[in-house]
Amino acid sequence: MQVHFHYDICSLITATIVGASGYSGAELLRLLASRKDVTLLHAAAATSAGKRIADVYPALDAVGDREYTSVGSALEDPVDVAFVELPSGEAMHIVPKLLRIAGRVIDLGGDFRLPVHLYEQYYGHPHAAPELLPEAVYGLPEINHDKIASARLIANPGCYPTSVILALLPALQRGFISPENIVINSLSGITGAGRSANVELSFSEINENIRAYKIGTHQHVPEIATVLNNATGKGISFSFVPHLVPLNRGIYTTIHATLSSSVTEAEIASAYREFYPDDAFVRIAGTIPQLKNVTGTNYCEINVRKHPTTNQLIMISIIDNLIKGAAGQAIQNMNIACGLPHYAGLREKETVHVA
Amino acid sequence: MQVHFHYDICSLITATIVGASGYSGAELLRLLASRKDVTLLHAAAATSAGKRIADVYPALDAVGDREYTSVGSALEDPVDVAFVELPSGEAMHIVPKLLRIAGRVIDLGGDFRLPVHLYEQYYGHPHAAPELLPEAVYGLPEINHDKIASARLIANPGCYPTSVILALLPALQRGFISPENIVINSLSGITGAGRSANVELSFSEINENIRAYKIGTHQHVPEIATVLNNATGKGISFSFVPHLVPLNRGIYTTIHATLSSSVTEAEIASAYREFYPDDAFVRIAGTIPQLKNVTGTNYCEINVRKHPTTNQLIMISIIDNLIKGAAGQAIQNMNIACGLPHYAGLREKETVHVA
Amino acid sequence: MQVHFHYDICSLITATIVGASGYSGAELLRLLASRKDVTLLHAAAATSAGKRIADVYPALDAVGDREYTSVGSALEDPVDVAFVELPSGEAMHIVPKLLRIAGRVIDLGGDFRLPVHLYEQYYGHPHAAPELLPEAVYGLPEINHDKIASARLIANPGCYPTSVILALLPALQRGFISPENIVINSLSGITGAGRSANVELSFSEINENIRAYKIGTHQHVPEIATVLNNATGKGISFSFVPHLVPLNRGIYTTIHATLSSSVTEAEIASAYREFYPDDAFVRIAGTIPQLKNVTGTNYCEINVRKHPTTNQLIMISIIDNLIKGAAGQAIQNMNIACGLPHYAGLREKETVHVA
Amino acid sequence: MQVHFHYDICSLITATIVGASGYSGAELLRLLASRKDVTLLHAAAATSAGKRIADVYPALDAVGDREYTSVGSALEDPVDVAFVELPSGEAMHIVPKLLRIAGRVIDLGGDFRLPVHLYEQYYGHPHAAPELLPEAVYGLPEINHDKIASARLIANPGCYPTSVILALLPALQRGFISPENIVINSLSGITGAGRSANVELSFSEINENIRAYKIGTHQHVPEIATVLNNATGKGISFSFVPHLVPLNRGIYTTIHATLSSSVTEAEIASAYREFYPDDAFVRIAGTIPQLKNVTGTNYCEINVRKHPTTNQLIMISIIDNLIKGAAGQAIQNMNIACGLPHYAGLREKETVHVA
Repeated sequence: MQVHFHYDICSLITATIVGASGYSGAELLRLLASRKDVTLLHAAAATSAGKRIADVYPALDAVGDREYTSVGSALEDPVDVAFVELPSGEAMHIVPKLLRIAGRVIDLGGDFRLPVHLYEQYYGHPHAAPELLPEAVYGLPEINHDKIASARLIANPGCYPTSVILALLPALQRGFISPENIVINSLSGITGAGRSANVELSFSEINENIRAYKIGTHQHVPEIATVLNNATGKGISFSFVPHLVPLNRGIYTTIHATLSSSVTEAEIASAYREFYPDDAFVRIAGTIPQLKNVTGTNYCEINVRKHPTTNQLIMISIIDNLIKGAAGQAIQNMNIACGLPHYAGLREKETVHVA
Repeated sequence: MQVHFHYDICSLITATIVGASGYSGAELLRLLASRKDVTLLHAAAATSAGKRIADVYPALDAVGDREYTSVGSALEDPVDVAFVELPSGEAMHIVPKLLRIAGRVIDLGGDFRLPVHLYEQYYGHPHAAPELLPEAVYGLPEINHDKIASARLIANPGCYPTSVILALLPALQRGFISPENIVINSLSGITGAGRSANVELSFSEINENIRAYKIGTHQHVPEIATVLNNATGKGISFSFVPHLVPLNRGIYTTIHATLSSSVTEAEIASAYREFYPDDAFVRIAGTIPQLKNVTGTNYCEINVRKHPTTNQLIMISIIDNLIKGAAGQAIQNMNIACGLPHYAGLREKETVHVA
Repeated sequence: MQVHFHYDICSLITATIVGASGYSGAELLRLLASRKDVTLLHAAAATSAGKRIADVYPALDAVGDREYTSVGSALEDPVDVAFVELPSGEAMHIVPKLLRIAGRVIDLGGDFRLPVHLYEQYYGHPHAAPELLPEAVYGLPEINHDKIASARLIANPGCYPTSVILALLPALQRGFISPENIVINSLSGITGAGRSANVELSFSEINENIRAYKIGTHQHVPEIATVLNNATGKGISFSFVPHLVPLNRGIYTTIHATLSSSVTEAEIASAYREFYPDDAFVRIAGTIPQLKNVTGTNYCEINVRKHPTTNQLIMISIIDNLIKGAAGQAIQNMNIACGLPHYAGLREKETVHVA
Repeated sequence: MQVHFHYDICSLITATIVGASGYSGAELLRLLASRKDVTLLHAAAATSAGKRIADVYPALDAVGDREYTSVGSALEDPVDVAFVELPSGEAMHIVPKLLRIAGRVIDLGGDFRLPVHLYEQYYGHPHAAPELLPEAVYGLPEINHDKIASARLIANPGCYPTSVILALLPALQRGFISPENIVINSLSGITGAGRSANVELSFSEINENIRAYKIGTHQHVPEIATVLNNATGKGISFSFVPHLVPLNRGIYTTIHATLSSSVTEAEIASAYREFYPDDAFVRIAGTIPQLKNVTGTNYCEINVRKHPTTNQLIMISIIDNLIKGAAGQAIQNMNIACGLPHYAGLREKETVHVA
């Protein structure tokens, strides 16, 4: 009922993207292009303002005739929803201005995900809008649906945290595993590092290569800890090791935790299936996932298994970093905040990869 | 008028795929999955019969609960359209049987594209159903729309020929270029070779490698020649050199021909834009294309340019080999044969790649 | 002294390879090709016998004029050293015969690395030559140099175990870490799966994809456990999760263990540097390694670091799976067994990759 | 005789590299590292001066303890040979200074390969040292061995021209083909574009993508034309289309030309084998080459075949762009200029790729 009611009143959503020239911004453009119920007023991009979108992303034929606008012009047109996809440290300067013209602001970056002290410790600079942090809602629909529905400022989760939190939360909440000594290995495709001119991200450096980075110091560490601590009331302790591997899209996360109960593997799988409702974008797999299962979709696929000879639970969790890890999840948040079904426009635009 | 009329009577199309476990078959499944106007009766696959489709292609969630059926069972259920995606030499044995139960048969392989003598010369074995060759219509919608509309047997074009013919045809028909001494270099992703166990197609052999193959002897040579000769009435003479390059999807074709008229580059581009109607899946680009412009779509993107210092016309033509080069074009043919707009269900399922 | 003495008497080593057509066999051919002190009598390969080696591996120009011979003919010519590179389950049938004609046999496969009960449990078939297992020496030069020097049968280590054991051994022996709850994540290039016709290893399946496999059941699990238990006298307990990632060569292993002492990171690094002699093919790095640092070389590069906020030690260990993980290590073993410096002919043939 | 005499007097060659931090510079470092007869005085690199070489290229273990020096300091130490590997437009400023301290200067860039008018037309800026152009020798050993031996300034060929000229020259000189209407398609790995921060060269843009570029305007066009015109006395006319493909190393060139004589394929192959002496780094292959045949080596592999149905000759020519296309050829030129066998230190450092 209510959903349909909201759907009606929101049926002409107006939206703006600030920072629409990066990969996540382009995915937002792609996902919004076919939405008959959303009118995109601005695809703003500081350095690309005035360029045709299709000149930067020729594949974006569906939006091809429009141009990137300036951030200044975007700030002049009130909208229902403003998406922000800017480097961390920039969003916090623009979000206060956007809140004056937008009913809801969804920030795809890291500026509004952490308490101020953790933000300043991990991001390395002072926060310019700490007064907004208390009201920012962490936009993971599977745990914060109702808060998202009424939020003015939504902090869209990071890509690694999305894959990690969705995999750990059921086991932690049900007390299957110890909150300590958790080991998280994540492998990321290169679009996760954004679209930028950087020798270290050049093809010749990445191809035929692997490297771990930011061990124990990645800015997603406090994000994972904060969300899981808040959700479970437990003090989580873990090591997170991200690795860059030579592919474009996707995150493959393999997590080890110590079992703290004598639950069976079937009971664990069953608990995970209960935890996530039928219409969620979380799929509990019976076999070891391969990354392509989710590439191009908004799904997180999770496989949970007890190690055959040790007392460890192994959780494998995969997402497309640009969709469930960024733009798709932002669309979910827009849908919820506008009273639409959370999956509106997402399953239809799945770009499943059979090869 | 007629289109709408046909649309109505065909609005509950029944379809069967024979050979649904290869990459093109999987793309067909993907493209048909969201069609509310098409009911897929069988996804038949000899070696995978009885397996869940989603066990072979986990990404095919939308059709995940159904199983591959046997070819025998598919032959028992009459349908409006039967797609055949079998290795060359196998389709010709099953097509006669399918014609008894299907209103139209669309063969994605090479068995019905050539006159019998060329078939036997290039495919290396006798043809089992030569009596059907005269009625087979070459399913390139841009040149054969009306014949496709009334065809019983449609020979879906090969991937290389699709990219080549669409690029050459306007220039040949308008007399811009000589039909002789044409040089065609094509680069193909590896899905073009199908889904099979083959050392030469293993990752370790293909990665960081390039090789040309079947120079002058590829089975697509007589296909290109036959179609262009029939369409233009000229005797075409060309060299076709296909190369395998390390990526999954797409064909990048670079063609050189000798200019035979003093036409300007702008006039040529204009002639190409006239040749292909506005709603066609052919896009005339103003700049040198990059392959990603068409990956995941049914588009062929063509750029035509005069060489700055020689008397040569250069045509670059790119497609996604699994879509415009196979399954997407087959859907176009089904649409036309069933009286639907040729683009039905194709633009909506574009999986454009921003990265 | 002794080394030089042995060097002289071994200075005309005769060798044979049985199973020379796989990737490791080809690396053996490459590494032996420039050895003036080694005469290769046979490059035997059952299915390729009679073919020119350069027709299978065109890059092997240096040995290009010779042909693969049959296994039968190889068994007729006595040699100083026989290398065996056959699928597990095949080597155990040929090794007894080779021991009659070869002074030493170096098996690159898994048939002689485990006690019989573990072999039969993990490899899934009975052992055909269990009487040879007691005398087989595990060919990891860094821990078994002297036994290798006098061995008749050398079991060359697996690729994953090489990267894992070299990383864990110093910390375990020095008591820095608990032998329990160790978590090992390994990422492997695709040549690790050998050269074979297998859909799952085809380019189109591997590219843009990642998958873990054989969690807790990989045949390298008991190998790692047996070697570490023997070397440390402790009961090791660990989870080992191998992953396939889309690149050709290299293993990237990331290990977590619980610190059991208050040692500093500098002390740990120092202990590792002491553990491995200056001329070893183990390099202790001060920064997080990238895989290319070792590609094409016989080096294992190890970085050891304490997690900044948890009580965990993180060990990253990288090798080229075909060199230190197979053929290079086999050459090391040959060198030692023949009284040569262990590094003979290895540093000279390093194929370091600047790009 | 003479060779040995020269070898003796040159046996302690001193060398300097200016611009040693790019990929070709790193290959020079790698190739020189094992040369007992060459003492490298400076590995100069403006932006990396003071850094350890192994911090930029960890694989360069063999030279790992030394640091990049400044260009200024390099100019203070007289040497036998100075290599210059700088962007075009920079080398012409430093070469006159290097000629004062170096017996021979080998420029790996494009500044000294063209007559001044063509240089200024294609490189887009005036030449700063036109007075040096007349004495610069084009450093393609297969055609200019004797001039290289006595040159003071050697212009090392471009990567594309190396693959193209070696393939075309024998057929042109013997009159097998028409010098007009030649079509050259080249596919290049990404290291050919150098080591730089550039969005268009980032992994996410290059991977799963192909694009042609600079059609008819590439700066290698006048280089190919000038060298072939000078060598044959004929007016060459051709179209050259370079493409970027997603792999690190190698150039795959496919050339079509019109046959102008009734020579057989065997006679052509025989003429090519005669043209290149036995010890040359040019290999005439009997089958269609795959790129890996030459990766890591200084070889150019050429296959020549008549098209089966047209009057065209097809020449396929492959090289490793960083070796025969840059650093390896520079070493060849140094060897020749110092009276050494042209292949000194090159075959030994081949890094043939079996996978």
